[in-house]
Formats: sequence, C-alpha cells, structure tokens
Amino acid sequence: MQRIEKIIEEIGPLDKGAMKQAKARQNFLTKPKESLGILEDVSIRVAGITGSPMPEIADKVIITMAGDHGAAKRGVSAFPQDVTAQMVYNFIRGGAGINVLARHAGARVVVVDIGVAADLEPSPVLVNKKVNHGTKDMTKGPAMTKEEAVRSITAGIEVVEEELKKGVDVIGTGDMGIGNTTASSAITAVFTGRDVREVTGRGTGVDDAALENKIGVIEECLKVNRPDKNDPIDVLAKVGGFEIGGLVGVILAGAKNRVPVVIDGFISGAAALIATQLTPQSKDYLIAAHRSVESGHTIMLEHIGLTPLMDLNMRLGEGTGAALGIFLTEASTRILSEMATFADAGVSESESE
Amino acid sequence: MQRIEKIIEEIGPLDKGAMKQAKARQNFLTKPKESLGILEDVSIRVAGITGSPMPEIADKVIITMAGDHGAAKRGVSAFPQDVTAQMVYNFIRGGAGINVLARHAGARVVVVDIGVAADLEPSPVLVNKKVNHGTKDMTKGPAMTKEEAVRSITAGIEVVEEELKKGVDVIGTGDMGIGNTTASSAITAVFTGRDVREVTGRGTGVDDAALENKIGVIEECLKVNRPDKNDPIDVLAKVGGFEIGGLVGVILAGAKNRVPVVIDGFISGAAALIATQLTPQSKDYLIAAHRSVESGHTIMLEHIGLTPLMDLNMRLGEGTGAALGIFLTEASTRILSEMATFADAGVSESESE
Repeated sequence: MQRIEKIIEEIGPLDKGAMKQAKARQNFLTKPKESLGILEDVSIRVAGITGSPMPEIADKVIITMAGDHGAAKRGVSAFPQDVTAQMVYNFIRGGAGINVLARHAGARVVVVDIGVAADLEPSPVLVNKKVNHGTKDMTKGPAMTKEEAVRSITAGIEVVEEELKKGVDVIGTGDMGIGNTTASSAITAVFTGRDVREVTGRGTGVDDAALENKIGVIEECLKVNRPDKNDPIDVLAKVGGFEIGGLVGVILAGAKNRVPVVIDGFISGAAALIATQLTPQSKDYLIAAHRSVESGHTIMLEHIGLTPLMDLNMRLGEGTGAALGIFLTEASTRILSEMATFADAGVSESESE
Repeated sequence: MQRIEKIIEEIGPLDKGAMKQAKARQNFLTKPKESLGILEDVSIRVAGITGSPMPEIADKVIITMAGDHGAAKRGVSAFPQDVTAQMVYNFIRGGAGINVLARHAGARVVVVDIGVAADLEPSPVLVNKKVNHGTKDMTKGPAMTKEEAVRSITAGIEVVEEELKKGVDVIGTGDMGIGNTTASSAITAVFTGRDVREVTGRGTGVDDAALENKIGVIEECLKVNRPDKNDPIDVLAKVGGFEIGGLVGVILAGAKNRVPVVIDGFISGAAALIATQLTPQSKDYLIAAHRSVESGHTIMLEHIGLTPLMDLNMRLGEGTGAALGIFLTEASTRILSEMATFADAGVSESESE
C-alpha cells in the first residue's frame, strides 16, 4: 500500500505552460482557428501531460490484463471461463482483435496474466504477474483479499515501469476476463450510486433471461459485501477483479510518469473510476477512446468527467477501442508538430482577427 | 455529358454474395458476435463494394480538389480568396493538415487545380485540370456554364482513372476553396428543401454579422438562379463550384470502379448530394467519415441516408476527416482478414448459440 500511496503523491498537475504554448501554436497553424476540434484539444492536453509543447508519440504500448472471475460460474457470461485462457493464447499468437488493431495503430501489445484461473504455459511475450487463480465468487464473500487488491495494483505499476525502460509515449489499456463486465457494473453501481439495472449491460451478448440473472448476481454481491465507496481498495477487493486492479496500477503509473493513458471501454472505465477515486488528479492523464455499448459506460464516464473520442458501437474490450484512440491521439500531436504555420507557408491569416 | 451518363449506367449494385461471406466470417472470428460494431458493418460493405469477401486496402488515395468562388468577393469567408492558391502550395510542400493526416493514415494526396483563380506554378505533384479561373459571382447569374459543370465532373473522373493505374483500394475526398461552404449550403438548400438559415454555418469562422451576410448571399443566388432540383447539373452550374463538380466525378468513378469512397465533410457532402441525385446507386459506395461542425452537414447526410463514423468537431476540409475515416475503413478490413477464427485459435464459442 505504501508504494501506491507514494505514486499517488507523485502525480502532479498538468503543465499549464506547455499547454499554453501548444494552444498558441495551434492558432498559428495553416487552418482556421480550432477547425480541427477535438484533435486540437487532445494535442493540448498531451502537451500538459508530457510537459512538452510539441510532444512526440513514437512508442505506443497497449497493456492487456487478463484475469478470471469466480462469478463466471453464476452464468453471467455467454462464454465459459476457459475462454479467458484460450484468448490469452490467441493474444500471444497475434490472432485477436487487439493484435490486429494494435498493429494497425503501430502499438505493441503487452499481455499480462494477472489472475487467469488456469496455469498458462510460459511465453516470452506473456508477462506473469499472477496474483491468484481467478477471484472468488463474490456472491459468497469478497472477490479477493485486501492484500490481493493491493498486489494487483502494484503489479500494474510494475508492468508500466518495465515498459518505460523500452520507451513509452502513450499507454492504451485493455482487458480480458470472462465475467468482468459483472464486476465492472458492480463497481459502477457503488461509485455512481445508480441502480444496478441502469449500469448493467449484455457483456459478451447474454439474452434477456441471462441479463436478469446477471443483475440479480450483482445485487447479491453488493448486499453480501457492502463495499465502502469511500475506500476504493475495499471496493476493488470485494466486487472487483485482478485485471481491473492491474489497470488501476497502469493508470496511476502512467499519470505519475506523465504518459497519456488512453482508456478502452467498460472494464478500463471501472479501473479509471477506482483510480480517480484514489486520486482525482489522475483524471487529467486519461483520454477516453470510445463509448462502449455497455449502458454503464456512459454513466461512469460522466461520473469521472470524460468525453469519449468515438462512438462505434463496440464492446469487445482487450484494448481494441484504445488502439483506435491511440491513432487519434498520435494524429493530434502530429498536427501540432508537423503542420506549417501561416508564416512558414506564406498563407494569409483570417481577416476577422 | 455522354461520358457521365455512361459511367452512371456502369455503376452496379453491391455484391450481396461477398457481403454474405464477409458477414459469416465476422461471426467466426474470435470475439463476441457483432462486438466490433460499426467496424464490422464497414467491412461487410467494403466486401460488397469490392466484390471480395476479404478485401485488402493497401493503396490509399485522397483526392483534394481546389477551386475558387466568385462569391468570395461578397464577404462570405473569414479569409481572402488568395488563400486558395496559397494553400495549394502548402499542400504541394506537405505542410497542410491533410498532408499530416494522410501521412499518418498511409495515404497519398493527389492535389488537383480544377479552378483556382490564380495561375499556379506547375509542379510534378499538382494535377492541372483547370476548368476556369474560379467561378463567377453567383448572386449575378450562374456560377459556371453547363459545359463547365460537365467538364468539372469529367475532370474528376479522369483523375480517378489516372490514379487507378497506380493502384487504388480506397479513395478519400477533399476540397480547398475560399467561399465553398457558401456554395455547399446553397446546394443543400436546393436538394433538401430546408431554409438557407438552417443549412448555413460559419465556414472558416465568420462572426454573427458575416454569417447574416452569408445567408443573404445564398438566398440571393437562389433567387437569381432558380436552380432546378430535378436537374443536378443545373444545380452544380448555377450555385456550385468546380471542386464540388470534380468530387462528383470522383464519387461516380469510384462507384463505377467498385472502390469505396470515404467522403470528408460539408463540401464533399455537397458533391455526394449531387452524385446521389444523379444516381441513387452511388450512395452504396460512400462511407461518411465524420460529422462536420457545419449545421448543414447533418441535414445533408440524413438526406442521403449516411451515418458518419466520427464526430470530432472538425471543420477544416481538405480531406482531413476522410484521412481518419480511411484509417477506420482499413481497420475494418484488417479485422476481417487478419483475425483468427474460433476454430483456428481453439477458442470455445458462445454457449448461447
């Protein structure tokens, strides 16, 4: 816990000077003022995050955390629990959605076993940070111990620290874990105070009856565990998941190291809820890639105060939305550093100024 | 006109067989069904457009058409007319927004002088298709003759035909022309029947007084010219622009050659209105990249029946939105061809099927 507290203390404010310089430069570039809209806003925020008025995004990393959920036994997903491990192997072989979209965005994928139920075969491209073999069934008691919750966050911090040695200019977050929209809905209900029904969606695609069952499971786990919304680690331990804890650590370490963190969808959003509850300052380092189909996602983003870049009806997870968001984030910084100014290009400025 | 009529006749329907195969493959890929949302839809449409169930997007081209507008003299823009030519030189040197975003998306930019008022210095990277030195002031009479309107469309067709020799898997459309939101608003008012005020925005960023003036100019040109909405060439000639006509030709030639055309914002949308009025079949070949800030853009897209991929508050033109849309289009086809199937990856399928 000391390590987490230390990182939280070290997260500083955005660099207002760099943001002012970036904003001024945007206004000198050969385009009508603010005509690149959200791309301009993103570039200015990345300047504030990195402290550079012309930030360069070269090394792009997507960290995909995989963990299992005891609640998966309760029929909350359209897929069996084995799929978590099977998909990790798919990530390792490069055949999953995140592999394709990360390649397309020029990002490397770091696959982390933070709590898959099965013992996975070692691989040079799999990071082993296993906290335990899946969480416990949270309708019977806490999903994990407080020590495990802390350990999962610390594991996320360690993964970022290891990647920083290779170079990281932007981090995307991703997840894999059958049952993890159930945990994310529970976390969202706790922090936003909204009804479970409002923040619970179909996840991988359950039918009406299974959705009712899923809502019942979440209500039950909240009743059994009574998580304390003022103690984010308590919430993570009681109704969270190892991959969600790991992504909390990724967010905190990204913020501490002044690296923009492009968050994916609903599960990454649950991690962002916990991280911003631990320290509101971390919010400034987050870029929300897209709006997920999961109904709770919009509610959590509003609660945090983030507006997603895209709305593409996606709900795959893995970091797939983050990969697309990284492309737009890099687009924003390339505009800032590569476009000619009015003076460079000999273009007349607006007459209305 | 014969050439245009011939191309229109040659535009076929989407290939339903290829679409069915692409849809089936999407459902075998290692992800919950339809969990990549709009990306899946786009991939299936590209399959229908190209006739290939696993289309590859390798050669990406953005065609940016530049032309001047007589109405620019009437104070409808925040920038002087000279900026059109200055920006063409900026495109040639690679310093404009479109150059940066096209590089980022891996697309080449083809810059076409289809009607810039100034005589431009020749350059190996500038395509000369000049129809005339800018349009006439359309508040006094037609912007161009019918022959010029036909010539501008034919020029667009020729540009696509020349590019096809080098390889083209997707075309993005772009524009440059001080005063061209004025023409595009006029075109939108004619085809949608909406009030000029509803379809007129601030373009490059005019203030309230200039916006009122702009609305007045558009109302005047419609009153003076009385364009016939049932004759799209008449509308283009009376209240259009050379770059808009050129983009009509690009759309028709793209559709005829079964190449997806990713349309940019408001000016490309005006070209799409004319093209789909000439032949409704062309709509199936269009992918709307983004929703522009220009109020008329949403109205024209609804009229055509297109939903934009993104909404990033952009209003730069040049093809900047199309560049981002091309990235997403390619993402969609890479998902289709590069992702592993459940069988390939040994991943269990959904239990609910």
